[in-house]
Amino acid sequence: MPITVTDQTVLQQLPAALERKKFLTKDFKGLEYYHAIDDWKHIPRGTAVFGEQVVFGYPHIGRVLALEAGLKAHFQAPFWAEEKINGFNVRIARIGDKIVALTRGGFICPFTTDRLPDLMPLEIFQKEPGIIVCAEVAGPDNPYLESYPPFVKTDIQLFVFDLMAVGKPGFFPYEEKLTLLEKYSLPSVPRFGRFEIENVEAIRHLILDLHQKWHEGIVFKEDSERDHRAKYVTGNSNIDDIRAAADNLMELPPEYFTNRLLRLALFLEENGLTASATMKQDLGGAFLDGLHRAVEHYRREHRVYTTFRCRFREKENAELMLNHLKRASRRIKIVQRDLHQEEGHWLLEFDRIYPHLTGMLGDLLSGRMIFD
Amino acid sequence: MPITVTDQTVLQQLPAALERKKFLTKDFKGLEYYHAIDDWKHIPRGTAVFGEQVVFGYPHIGRVLALEAGLKAHFQAPFWAEEKINGFNVRIARIGDKIVALTRGGFICPFTTDRLPDLMPLEIFQKEPGIIVCAEVAGPDNPYLESYPPFVKTDIQLFVFDLMAVGKPGFFPYEEKLTLLEKYSLPSVPRFGRFEIENVEAIRHLILDLHQKWHEGIVFKEDSERDHRAKYVTGNSNIDDIRAAADNLMELPPEYFTNRLLRLALFLEENGLTASATMKQDLGGAFLDGLHRAVEHYRREHRVYTTFRCRFREKENAELMLNHLKRASRRIKIVQRDLHQEEGHWLLEFDRIYPHLTGMLGDLLSGRMIFD
Repeated sequence: MPITVTDQTVLQQLPAALERKKFLTKDFKGLEYYHAIDDWKHIPRGTAVFGEQVVFGYPHIGRVLALEAGLKAHFQAPFWAEEKINGFNVRIARIGDKIVALTRGGFICPFTTDRLPDLMPLEIFQKEPGIIVCAEVAGPDNPYLESYPPFVKTDIQLFVFDLMAVGKPGFFPYEEKLTLLEKYSLPSVPRFGRFEIENVEAIRHLILDLHQKWHEGIVFKEDSERDHRAKYVTGNSNIDDIRAAADNLMELPPEYFTNRLLRLALFLEENGLTASATMKQDLGGAFLDGLHRAVEHYRREHRVYTTFRCRFREKENAELMLNHLKRASRRIKIVQRDLHQEEGHWLLEFDRIYPHLTGMLGDLLSGRMIFD
Repeated sequence: MPITVTDQTVLQQLPAALERKKFLTKDFKGLEYYHAIDDWKHIPRGTAVFGEQVVFGYPHIGRVLALEAGLKAHFQAPFWAEEKINGFNVRIARIGDKIVALTRGGFICPFTTDRLPDLMPLEIFQKEPGIIVCAEVAGPDNPYLESYPPFVKTDIQLFVFDLMAVGKPGFFPYEEKLTLLEKYSLPSVPRFGRFEIENVEAIRHLILDLHQKWHEGIVFKEDSERDHRAKYVTGNSNIDDIRAAADNLMELPPEYFTNRLLRLALFLEENGLTASATMKQDLGGAFLDGLHRAVEHYRREHRVYTTFRCRFREKENAELMLNHLKRASRRIKIVQRDLHQEEGHWLLEFDRIYPHLTGMLGDLLSGRMIFD
């Protein structure tokens, strides 16, 4: 049996947690709060405390690399299948008169919080006090990730996948979630329905379709009290990850790449596919195109970077976001390019400069000799 | 000025080195010797001591990743260019009445030692006592490496690139080497001649030709007292390395792969090439084909392995080689497949089993859930 932590446990542990720097104190426009920077004493990472209100962290969902064996090993009852969206996870909650979006780490995201009125109807927070909307924010114009789903062509979109309640770990039952999503017209992740464990072929059909469309994958949620979950990604989603990370090759742990290669190989094998010429070309290109861009950047400007842009409703939030990113990235340097009004929003553009690859290319291109 | 270590220094240090396990004691068919398992107090790794005779380790040659900048940064005088052969480095010396081949680590290689009469004329060891022949052993049938030069179609060949003397660090002068190689009909690495530093375009032409033929690269040796050296590899040689290592993905440090990708990207950029569709396909295939093989092996036999084979003149040497490999590989398991006589040689076949990838595939294919 998992140990259940209540909001009272969290509030009792808070002073000790703050002293041991397991929770940090933060402030968002005068709203003071605390957030758990790591799992600690059964309190999940990302748990945030606003006065007496506890917003529990979003739990980790395990990944299986073999679809059929994974489903059979982990599910004891029928399960729901939902599309996994390639974005960043937020929990949206009403705190006093503010509605805020928390990142996975429990930090109030100035970007998502700013854009909430563009992303979803907010009525639910008036009618259902204490609700937490769990969703993925995805699209080309986001401040965190280089990759995004192919079906979000501009800006960002929100995809809701769970509901929680302030003060309680765990999720709303599936049927109740469906009712509330419909009642409040919340934008949902695509849902594929309810499956029996024996029905693997239907799921395989689904995942191959997502793979061909370069979508990310599926999250499975058991239709039972224990609400057991697992995720499984498509082959192409691994190539997409590699492509997005290639010009950042030296900052990431190299396992980032080898793990994705292994996932891709297992995907192909399980589905009876052999790597086509096109897939090999996509994979090789995912590595080489990003590195080519990095070397070109270095030659031209003596730094390797990626440019991000995102839109804000309020200028102040754009500035808060930039400051947050600057403070949060110890190794990666954040430099503002531009902040100007455009079509009703403030458009922020900034670069993420990769110092390790920048320094390495500087050395290597000047002819440095290495001994390996 | 580099500190020069003499054979007397090595002999004086030997008791202390043995006590601190910097040198290990070995025995090859009754011939007792000691070898330095790492660089220590200016004694290079691989230095071997037979009684009073010291065979110095082969020094590290630095690698440049930018050809033109590297040559300009490191060479002060014209230099010789020789082909870099994709094999393993041996130093061949006469010790008493035995002629032995030492690996880079200073261990007597039972395989190379056994095959010496097939690989080169041995007359030089009668006429030039105290000579050490430094060479690369390369070909499909070698016990150490999965990759080999495309121009060695069967078995192995020897390619001599340096001469040393017992008791002395450093190499014979280039012209003297040429004279001795010719006098004793020693099989040489391909030599491309002597170049001025300004003559980069000729070298670039050479390296692009080697790249297109999937050869490994060039070693540059300054034509001067200090005999400064550097190596530079072709773009395709990186793809070849990745292909040879892919089914061993989880045993190698992941930097093995990211470093080679970076070398390839720099090769393309410096030579004004963009990655062609064929190259991308080669690179993607280098990763995926090996992993595919690994997963297939696992499904069929519940282990991931590579089969090696090599020929011996004497059965005893095959057995010594296998025992050496078994003892030397802590993580990788060596299992004999076959040892039988064939066309005048003893043909040894053995598998190198990769336990990490084997265990990982066992877990993942049974549906194990991972949290990342």
